[in-house]
Amino acid sequence: MSSSSPSLARAPHHDGSVTYLGPVPTRPGGSVRLRVHVPAPGASRVRVRWGQDGEPRLRDLTPTPAFDGQWWTGELPLVNARTSYRFLIEGPDGARHRWLTAEGVSEREVSDRSDFVLDASDAAPDWVADQVAYQIFPDRFARSAAAADRELPDWAVPQAWDEPVVAAGGPVARQLYGGDLDGIAEHLDHLVDLGVTTLYLTPVFEGRSNHRYDAVSFDRVDPVLGGDDAYRRLIDAAHARGLRVLGDLTTNHTGSGHEWFRAAAADPTGVEAGFYLFDDQGYHCWLGHPSLPTLDYRGRELRERMYGRADSVVARWVDAGLDGWRIDVANMTGRQGGVDLTREVARGVREAMTRVNADTWLLAEHFFDASADLVGDGWHGVMDYAGASMPLWWWLAAPGARPHATVPLPIDPLPARDVVATMREVHARYPWAAVTASTVHLDSHDTARFRTLAGGGEHGGVDDGSSDSGLARARHLLGAGLQLTLPGVPALFAGDELGLTATTGEHARTPIPWDARETWDAATLDAYRELVALRREHPALRRGGLRWLSAGVDHLTFVREHPAGRVLVHAVRPRPDGAAPRDGEVRLPAAVLGGDAADAVTLRGEGLVRLDDGDEPVLALPGSVGAHLWLLPGDDLAWT
Amino acid sequence: MSSSSPSLARAPHHDGSVTYLGPVPTRPGGSVRLRVHVPAPGASRVRVRWGQDGEPRLRDLTPTPAFDGQWWTGELPLVNARTSYRFLIEGPDGARHRWLTAEGVSEREVSDRSDFVLDASDAAPDWVADQVAYQIFPDRFARSAAAADRELPDWAVPQAWDEPVVAAGGPVARQLYGGDLDGIAEHLDHLVDLGVTTLYLTPVFEGRSNHRYDAVSFDRVDPVLGGDDAYRRLIDAAHARGLRVLGDLTTNHTGSGHEWFRAAAADPTGVEAGFYLFDDQGYHCWLGHPSLPTLDYRGRELRERMYGRADSVVARWVDAGLDGWRIDVANMTGRQGGVDLTREVARGVREAMTRVNADTWLLAEHFFDASADLVGDGWHGVMDYAGASMPLWWWLAAPGARPHATVPLPIDPLPARDVVATMREVHARYPWAAVTASTVHLDSHDTARFRTLAGGGEHGGVDDGSSDSGLARARHLLGAGLQLTLPGVPALFAGDELGLTATTGEHARTPIPWDARETWDAATLDAYRELVALRREHPALRRGGLRWLSAGVDHLTFVREHPAGRVLVHAVRPRPDGAAPRDGEVRLPAAVLGGDAADAVTLRGEGLVRLDDGDEPVLALPGSVGAHLWLLPGDDLAWT
Repeated sequence: MSSSSPSLARAPHHDGSVTYLGPVPTRPGGSVRLRVHVPAPGASRVRVRWGQDGEPRLRDLTPTPAFDGQWWTGELPLVNARTSYRFLIEGPDGARHRWLTAEGVSEREVSDRSDFVLDASDAAPDWVADQVAYQIFPDRFARSAAAADRELPDWAVPQAWDEPVVAAGGPVARQLYGGDLDGIAEHLDHLVDLGVTTLYLTPVFEGRSNHRYDAVSFDRVDPVLGGDDAYRRLIDAAHARGLRVLGDLTTNHTGSGHEWFRAAAADPTGVEAGFYLFDDQGYHCWLGHPSLPTLDYRGRELRERMYGRADSVVARWVDAGLDGWRIDVANMTGRQGGVDLTREVARGVREAMTRVNADTWLLAEHFFDASADLVGDGWHGVMDYAGASMPLWWWLAAPGARPHATVPLPIDPLPARDVVATMREVHARYPWAAVTASTVHLDSHDTARFRTLAGGGEHGGVDDGSSDSGLARARHLLGAGLQLTLPGVPALFAGDELGLTATTGEHARTPIPWDARETWDAATLDAYRELVALRREHPALRRGGLRWLSAGVDHLTFVREHPAGRVLVHAVRPRPDGAAPRDGEVRLPAAVLGGDAADAVTLRGEGLVRLDDGDEPVLALPGSVGAHLWLLPGDDLAWT
Repeated sequence: MSSSSPSLARAPHHDGSVTYLGPVPTRPGGSVRLRVHVPAPGASRVRVRWGQDGEPRLRDLTPTPAFDGQWWTGELPLVNARTSYRFLIEGPDGARHRWLTAEGVSEREVSDRSDFVLDASDAAPDWVADQVAYQIFPDRFARSAAAADRELPDWAVPQAWDEPVVAAGGPVARQLYGGDLDGIAEHLDHLVDLGVTTLYLTPVFEGRSNHRYDAVSFDRVDPVLGGDDAYRRLIDAAHARGLRVLGDLTTNHTGSGHEWFRAAAADPTGVEAGFYLFDDQGYHCWLGHPSLPTLDYRGRELRERMYGRADSVVARWVDAGLDGWRIDVANMTGRQGGVDLTREVARGVREAMTRVNADTWLLAEHFFDASADLVGDGWHGVMDYAGASMPLWWWLAAPGARPHATVPLPIDPLPARDVVATMREVHARYPWAAVTASTVHLDSHDTARFRTLAGGGEHGGVDDGSSDSGLARARHLLGAGLQLTLPGVPALFAGDELGLTATTGEHARTPIPWDARETWDAATLDAYRELVALRREHPALRRGGLRWLSAGVDHLTFVREHPAGRVLVHAVRPRPDGAAPRDGEVRLPAAVLGGDAADAVTLRGEGLVRLDDGDEPVLALPGSVGAHLWLLPGDDLAWT
């Protein structure tokens, strides 16, 4: 049951964090300071290889002593908008040379595609890395008193707040629970208590469905939500509490009821007709849904209205106080047949935001490998389903779980080493700045609830953890522990912290049971509160590097490295029927954590990540603690 | 010493060859028929997943019986310019699902970056796949009688034909041996006898060096080579012998003596001044060589002169009879600092060629991962150093060998499994159409001679194979055997077939010893002749798929699959001092080759690939043959 992983723990390491990379110029030209850590016995020579104008170059780095080995430090010229780089490590003593790329260390010749990538462009604002986001689906979060008096739209099927949510089909998009923006504003205490810092709202523009991804206008907030004034009040109230607010914009399509589409349908010669893709069969629409006609960015006027003009959709709502946009279906925006304008649209949206307020965050929805679109001047980051959610599902979900349509088979859990390999592979092609400006989700309004994936029931209500000896809760909280300790902005879907269950994305849009607090899973809420606080407390969790130390079947182990302190995370997957983890105990050389090279550390435990606080260095840890997260000094990680 | 590799040999397979993919539309829209082979016990369900407008879709394939298992066949929609795809294979009997991507089969979730890629665009002309290319450095191939009378340029250091070539430094670029185009035309019999089909000439435009990559004009052929008339005569003579002719163009830079650069330097306000990158320090030049000022494609007039106008450089020489262009330093062309116009230049060059003659081939020099530039509408293919030469060097070169500056360390040979992994990894991101329109080099005018890498001496003359018990020759011919049997157009550097040695690219530009034929290594020449004939004889070697069957330390085994027949190649690396290969014998299930599923085949042997001809299927082969290449029927591979 004990497992040692010297190959990972003793591998040379570099990542794009401040621990390994100096300040990055925002324009081509200049250079960046970087370093590599090479564990003992060290190397005899280390060079950085980078591409310049399409041609690789090599430059020697300089060694200095480091914990457990050596630093190798040097300057990397950033001549182009994007620079790919890797390290060539020789020695010691005639050992075979190794390449260090973003996927790790290799003794064979590896393709350039796994090189580290670095963009000389404006990264996301500095504050983004410090956020913990909280996603709210406005119809389902909370109702203000005013909600009862509002006239409902013709498409709506009004629901009582405690009416079950339909999981699929029928009235799934028309069930209207009447949550509104003032209702959210009235419950900001809950967010502050939880410790989250960014409020991400799914669309608020008027649509013809409860999700409002079928906007009829981008110019006004749905009156059912309280209208523009209520949006203003909410943004102000959030800002007053120190919360950031992220809007949600569909650049890929509008609703068929949108004023642009109605104008286009009415007058084929009008300017709006050029906003859509009409042909003999009708019009191009998102995944074949006639209610969602696709926007065509080839014409100038659409680009002007969406992000070109001073009063464009993108600009005016940033001007109204949004701290950023989440872009819906970003992976398809501008892509139709032979046309691919996604990067141009992304750049246009970024520029429009920046003109109004450079301190804003541009986040793109993307379920798959987004590397081709993360090129530095467009989306800052993505909703990281591919590099975070899916690996976590494949490790922690119960057998047979069905997270989302993009996972085409029921989950058959994988060993940790496989999901770590996927994470590393996906993130290898993302600049570090994009990873840390991406959001990490266990679930969202588009997926089953993670608690259900973990085996916590399918009823749509709160799982109190009692039905299955707490296994689902344990899996859930281990997932949350990873969500809150890995790089990237953790993004909770409102209700995750209460233990809500749901089988589909639609089902997951459960009204928050404010009037049934006795049903909330207090253990889950407490754990979230603790984990959020932990992340906010420790710079290493927000800004530290990520060094994998071990990955087996039922365990994975990593350390977040930052001069303000290291945080070591050892996660052990709970098994059904109380079975012992197959490899829950891991022995690591203490030196890799900054300790005395001669000692070793044994990590044990199961289930929820907890904090063993205090200033004790790892070497002082008893050999058999049950906790899975340690704080360690990091001052030896400071640059000299 | 026996090794079995069931995981490779029994893996489901697909590639972009005609055996697995139907005719590909040349514009977005339409679809392509494709199939996967799943060895016994087969699968219960196979789906293709592809990206459409940025979003993955899934579609079921249909099973039919196949040799050793099943075909799964279906239609893949090609909605976009590029389509990425992979296969999801389930079963049988509750077996874990597997993904099949261009890198092979995985049970874990693999990033989309290893998906197969397919471009809906014009691929290279059909004839390209059938070529065997022969590279000639004009100053060093042969002198016509007229050469003696020509006036030599002032920079030249005239050399007698048998004078040793300098390997580096001093007069390396100024040694002029006086080879000329009529000299080449007079020796076309040698090419025809060898069986090669495409003559690739390094630059013929006047320069101020023996390599002429520093052109002083793109409008006239160097008079020292015989001028425009001699070029015309050579092209006509080659065409008359059925040979294609490929030119060599530096789009990245000119010589500092170029008429454009002289105009630019003389008049900073003139149009040519915009062709280069002048700044306070002087001008941007290739890798810092002042004699090679870099071209700047941001301005219209340069693009017009290079490839825009009807009499552009690219167009006029195609009009003069060239069958294609090899583009020098293609990886850097158009890339300087914040500017990246490489794809635009590539597209412009392709369009210019196509306007004159659509039946032409566009080949790009590229020492590294070229996937970002192989996007369907630019370069057809690349000189495949990254995906072919480098892996072959790392497998077959002698310890300590130094092939080229881009290999930053002396060779320390790798096991076959590592070099196969690199080949697969690099090629995974290239469309199959680009792999088959790329050239496979053991060496070139830019590298050490492969014979020297193989241990055959450094003197620059012919290695007759006697000095080291034939080890270098054996390695060399095994390399040639792989060069002539792997996908991609084999490209010999003139003199490889004679056993020439050389330590650097410059050194490799040895004059062909026409007057010392007794020094030629006859065994090497015979083997090349046989291998070229073999490739030309068998459609499988030119157009067949590539299925890896086994890769260990000293052996690698693959089968090229085509309905006209399979060719099985088992390559075993010879070892120093006559030591036995560590895993030269491999046992494979016969069924994977189309034989009876109950039988197995044992492959043995060492050294040179040879042909065991005849119509005998593999099952009729004796168990202990020494030959390494078998012809097998392929009619069961035909589409139904």
